[in-house]
Amino acid sequence: MTLEGRVLKLAGEVGPLDKKATARARERHLALTKPPGSLGRLEDIGVRLSAMAGEVPPPAPEEPAVVICAGDHGVLARGVSPWPKEVTATMVENFCAGGAAANAIARTIGARISILDVGVAAGLERHPLLRTAKVRPGTDDLSRGPAMGREDAAKAVMSGAGIAEELIESGVDLLVTGDMGIGNTTPAAALISAFTGRSPREVTGRGTGIDDKTLELKVGVIEEALRLHEPDLDDPLGTLAALGGLEHAAIVGLILMGAVYGVPVVLDGIVSDSAALVACALSTDCVGYLVAGHLSAEPGARVALEHLGLEAVFDLRMRLGEGTGGLLAVPVVQAGARVLREMATMEEMGIG
Amino acid sequence: MTLEGRVLKLAGEVGPLDKKATARARERHLALTKPPGSLGRLEDIGVRLSAMAGEVPPPAPEEPAVVICAGDHGVLARGVSPWPKEVTATMVENFCAGGAAANAIARTIGARISILDVGVAAGLERHPLLRTAKVRPGTDDLSRGPAMGREDAAKAVMSGAGIAEELIESGVDLLVTGDMGIGNTTPAAALISAFTGRSPREVTGRGTGIDDKTLELKVGVIEEALRLHEPDLDDPLGTLAALGGLEHAAIVGLILMGAVYGVPVVLDGIVSDSAALVACALSTDCVGYLVAGHLSAEPGARVALEHLGLEAVFDLRMRLGEGTGGLLAVPVVQAGARVLREMATMEEMGIG
Repeated sequence: MTLEGRVLKLAGEVGPLDKKATARARERHLALTKPPGSLGRLEDIGVRLSAMAGEVPPPAPEEPAVVICAGDHGVLARGVSPWPKEVTATMVENFCAGGAAANAIARTIGARISILDVGVAAGLERHPLLRTAKVRPGTDDLSRGPAMGREDAAKAVMSGAGIAEELIESGVDLLVTGDMGIGNTTPAAALISAFTGRSPREVTGRGTGIDDKTLELKVGVIEEALRLHEPDLDDPLGTLAALGGLEHAAIVGLILMGAVYGVPVVLDGIVSDSAALVACALSTDCVGYLVAGHLSAEPGARVALEHLGLEAVFDLRMRLGEGTGGLLAVPVVQAGARVLREMATMEEMGIG
Repeated sequence: MTLEGRVLKLAGEVGPLDKKATARARERHLALTKPPGSLGRLEDIGVRLSAMAGEVPPPAPEEPAVVICAGDHGVLARGVSPWPKEVTATMVENFCAGGAAANAIARTIGARISILDVGVAAGLERHPLLRTAKVRPGTDDLSRGPAMGREDAAKAVMSGAGIAEELIESGVDLLVTGDMGIGNTTPAAALISAFTGRSPREVTGRGTGIDDKTLELKVGVIEEALRLHEPDLDDPLGTLAALGGLEHAAIVGLILMGAVYGVPVVLDGIVSDSAALVACALSTDCVGYLVAGHLSAEPGARVALEHLGLEAVFDLRMRLGEGTGGLLAVPVVQAGARVLREMATMEEMGIG
């Protein structure tokens, strides 16, 4: 089977949520020792975990893992970010050494951390946390041609899927999507514009903190790219290849494989949100397994999540990526399961 | 010294935040391996933890504890809630047995749990998690007279302060405020109306989920109470005694003692928010030690937090109390400290 065929097959294996479990979880919530609905969205999260697992109460995620997918971007040559591409490799070193924000937050919540090099433009030293599955040393400039070939995009998707499968088989029961790649909010905004139909101006933000002039340039570059590629939404993989990044593609694979296993996938910020649009275009059932960890400060994040019908767990005006915002939402997801599992019922307590 | 004198003395011992530590923490954030400001409000939380502790980086809270202060309410006789007061005692049993939402969430985030009976209207069986400091078996009807005498209010404040001190001395480094008391959103809304000057209609909500008719009655009862007592804002303790509840008073004590020790106090929902208004009226510096864990679905919560100048960590439309919303914010507070403590600097990584 071609790589592309394998991606489509994987997407086809995502099953629908269990509607009976949804109904039973809602019923169980009504029986617990609290006023109906008083746990708000925490109840919805627990109900959805039940629907994913087809079990009421749902299993409580105890082995969360973040996968930070890393790649470089040819479009950086257009000047869309003030940071040099070498920072991508340096940050991978930082993750391996334990000194990045994602490491500190992963330790706080007790999550495993893996780094997946699908497209860093530099050779990287081996490290136990680093998985090398380099498809190519970064993308081409998406404003001048396709960011990558379809087979490369498919290969990166399957790399993400592969690490997800391996983690889940080794006990991981919740995945957080993470990203690292200098310049990667440009392909993210391009994908969001393509999949939602909103203009590049509406979905493009300042990324790491660019000035007005660079923002104008970034919007212009994305407009050019969309004119050049005229993305066909019936061809999500082609759109991903034309406009995306290798780490975006790998996150598509993480999401699909998580969904196939019925494991919750917590999205981080705009890069993950853009990948979620691709994954859900490949499999409409996929969205049921997604939890929007946080609302990134990037304007495209809100647009993408609205398109997906997802509401973020919180909004701390973060815009770092790496999985940082997704990781912070993990205890909320865990609590959503645990209240359903562990609370006494009104009947047991003799109330009502 | 009178009990009232002890409360005022305690409030007087709250010190200001350390401004130098604030500046140094902001500077440190700029040096870390991330774009400036990209961790959003997580940065602000870390900076404030530094200011509380007078240390940069700040200590990372590792021993969080929730204290669920419980009491009953004479105003229940007016029909402001459909639940009978016996449920307060039953829920205390539930906390002791580990079957309430607060227990499940406390276990999720690794927090200790204590229950403080300052005013439950029933005798309660002894239990290792239950501290008995019953000032009186519930308040009087605040719409017909003062909810309690000033000395009783002061006694409840000092009970909350006492358990806070004991927990902190035994290693607790973060306090979450919790409450249990059927009918307790009525005194909370009354306090919020008194301290913010907003009308009872603007700050009164449906609590556990009352219908339109009961909501009208509840607003009317609070209007009556405010007309009756004409609260004097220069006398926070008198206002607390007239309109509050015993658990509200105990939470005032928790907050004050936490602030005296420089320990972060994470507020839960509307009952905690109303107590925070009292505590901050007693000590203006107190607000610096508060983190608004979540935005309760009760309308008074937003009014109280705005008055205090606090922004909630998240909004999950929860309205249960017990400390549930505050507990969910604890990992975010911990992460705020840990990124400052554990992240590598740009210089160390040779960036920039």
